[in-house]
Amino acid sequence: MPPAALDPQRTLAELKELRRLTGDELGAQRVAFTRPWNVARAWFREKLQALPVEVHADAAGNLWATLRGESARELVIGGHLDSVPNGGWLDGCLNVLAGLEVLRRISAQHAGRPPVTVRLVDWADEEGARFGKSLFGSSACSGNLDMEEARRLKDRDGLGLPAVLREIGVDFERVKDSGRELARAAAYLELHIEQGPVLLDLGLPLGAVLGTFGVERHELTFHGQAAHSGSTPMNRRKDAFLAAARMAEEIYRITDRHGGVCTIGSCTTRPGIVTSVVEECRITLDQRHLDAAALARMLAEAREASERFAREGGVRVAWSRIWRIAPMPFHPELIELCDQAIAETVPRSHRLPSGPLHDAAEVARAGVPTVMMFVQSLHGISHNRIEDTREEHLELCVRAFDRLADKAMRWIAR
Amino acid sequence: MPPAALDPQRTLAELKELRRLTGDELGAQRVAFTRPWNVARAWFREKLQALPVEVHADAAGNLWATLRGESARELVIGGHLDSVPNGGWLDGCLNVLAGLEVLRRISAQHAGRPPVTVRLVDWADEEGARFGKSLFGSSACSGNLDMEEARRLKDRDGLGLPAVLREIGVDFERVKDSGRELARAAAYLELHIEQGPVLLDLGLPLGAVLGTFGVERHELTFHGQAAHSGSTPMNRRKDAFLAAARMAEEIYRITDRHGGVCTIGSCTTRPGIVTSVVEECRITLDQRHLDAAALARMLAEAREASERFAREGGVRVAWSRIWRIAPMPFHPELIELCDQAIAETVPRSHRLPSGPLHDAAEVARAGVPTVMMFVQSLHGISHNRIEDTREEHLELCVRAFDRLADKAMRWIAR
Repeated sequence: MPPAALDPQRTLAELKELRRLTGDELGAQRVAFTRPWNVARAWFREKLQALPVEVHADAAGNLWATLRGESARELVIGGHLDSVPNGGWLDGCLNVLAGLEVLRRISAQHAGRPPVTVRLVDWADEEGARFGKSLFGSSACSGNLDMEEARRLKDRDGLGLPAVLREIGVDFERVKDSGRELARAAAYLELHIEQGPVLLDLGLPLGAVLGTFGVERHELTFHGQAAHSGSTPMNRRKDAFLAAARMAEEIYRITDRHGGVCTIGSCTTRPGIVTSVVEECRITLDQRHLDAAALARMLAEAREASERFAREGGVRVAWSRIWRIAPMPFHPELIELCDQAIAETVPRSHRLPSGPLHDAAEVARAGVPTVMMFVQSLHGISHNRIEDTREEHLELCVRAFDRLADKAMRWIAR
Repeated sequence: MPPAALDPQRTLAELKELRRLTGDELGAQRVAFTRPWNVARAWFREKLQALPVEVHADAAGNLWATLRGESARELVIGGHLDSVPNGGWLDGCLNVLAGLEVLRRISAQHAGRPPVTVRLVDWADEEGARFGKSLFGSSACSGNLDMEEARRLKDRDGLGLPAVLREIGVDFERVKDSGRELARAAAYLELHIEQGPVLLDLGLPLGAVLGTFGVERHELTFHGQAAHSGSTPMNRRKDAFLAAARMAEEIYRITDRHGGVCTIGSCTTRPGIVTSVVEECRITLDQRHLDAAALARMLAEAREASERFAREGGVRVAWSRIWRIAPMPFHPELIELCDQAIAETVPRSHRLPSGPLHDAAEVARAGVPTVMMFVQSLHGISHNRIEDTREEHLELCVRAFDRLADKAMRWIAR
């Protein structure tokens, strides 16, 4: 070190090349299992041909490039070429193309034979844009994919996931065989745009990710009594909207106490007409925290508050769980290495949790020591064509990520 | 007085007869301009044949029965046979059938020639259930019908109001000619079920109505910023739902200060998904008060609060008026007479405003001295098959309303 042959400018050029190839004026269009995604993967395979790597798709359609090393123990670098429709140009593919550049540097520096095996994986369908279920490839690989649920997934045209997988040569019933790919994985690294405003607000280009938030996602239904908006005195109302609306401020009080984030993303009312008190109000509540105990307290407090508001308003409230996932803290030593790699590249590092889920959470769940690195997002916005990151930050993140890869290799070799 | 021949039991029997004829297990089905409504009117015309009255439909399809008196000055009693779909058995038709009984008593007592002319009107389409616009017949008659708007009204099958009126022999372009019917009206009386819980809560059968509430009806659109529910710190959010939801409690504070009623009947969110902070939240706000100045203050305070919540939440708010109508206070002397008629019938009277609109408001708007009498509603519920009133209260309201008619005739004759 310093790394031989690393060329972050090349990564930038390749990101732009991929954007031209698979995006349009509305944004990135690399939805998994569609033509632009296939185009992106074919283009990526071409790039890999210049390297002494073995390339294959696994049983779940994840694409692996393997640079054999002295040791069979593996450093895995992962990302995803797929995007949401009208997506940002960096989400997912930055990881893959920075990983490609790191692979080039390692291969060049070690004359094609690094001390440990290094692999780059392009996970299949991280976004879940077509079938509404994210992390398909990585959850198949980690063994956490719910087969019953996935078997029933349909796209907008009614096409099932198994049928669509068959088109790319994947047998749905055997997707978990991909799990063997992780058998010798000793560390997993993922570089990603932050998709939030934390680094932007701090004026920092890069951050070491502590883990992915656990999520508690519920639907709350408040049930009151429809009543004429003209003839019903205020003190006689059983106003389901009033009780539900009081949760809006309450979730900010909960996060004031515990950290983490809470979101009421949807509110519907019935009968939902101007001339009637609301009989039924449904809201969705999404709560996230890196600490499982704190998340449990946040959930308990939200439930208690909702029941109090219901009681005080003479209405009933029912909770129904939509989804949950436990927090996935990353590996402490890898977090430390990530922090160091950042601090050697820019004046200051920062540690932060990831609100969004990533393939890294699935890999960590499978027991592989994992860490992610974040690079600042402009606007704090993602899943949108205005998603962007300053070019100098993109260069810096490739450099820092390469340093992290180097440190991780040494860590594995120890 | 006491009134000769008044038979409230007959009114009760006729109400039940009409229910059998034009209702089903889901409730009353007398939607204006449909077959059950025509059946109800034909049945009503048959009842009128036993009386020395002249019967005709006016230029707006309102049905008038006129008992000529010594004076051409008229006492008008009004109601409506039409109902909402699956409606209550009393809403509207109670007025018509109690009015019929009062007409019988007056005719009998004065040998077919009372001191003033007495008329009973069955207003066409009070409910507006088919075309979404209430008070058609009475607003045509009062001259307040918005012709441009009414000309464009369509039912669910795309049939226009003018075409449907043509089927019953009414020329839409001439409906305001019905206004001449009110030329000699000296007082207007309307008996109605309360449709709210005020008399029920007080344990009183009857009340004198002070007037109909003015209404300010708006849509408020709060506009914030969609943001990922996992990656966006709480202090960075521009949460449109938070700002809108704070209005829910605010409207109760506003009515605490001013009286009247406020209702948020509908709330919609965009993108309205569990994983995003709400970018746009729309709520409807319905505000009602009997006093125009108080209503104006309620509106101003709601607007100020919404702007404060928007400012504090970093979002914008836009107001758009859906509809407004001025309060319509009833005639002070007629309110007094109504109070007396009630107090002579039951131990205690009560004065209260009407939250819902009624044809009486249109007649008052046309300058005719007007009052309404309310009879207690069980459950405080209307526009629903469970709408009901105790039979002894129905009998009492016919008696009290008849006393009011007698007093109003004397008042006109003075």
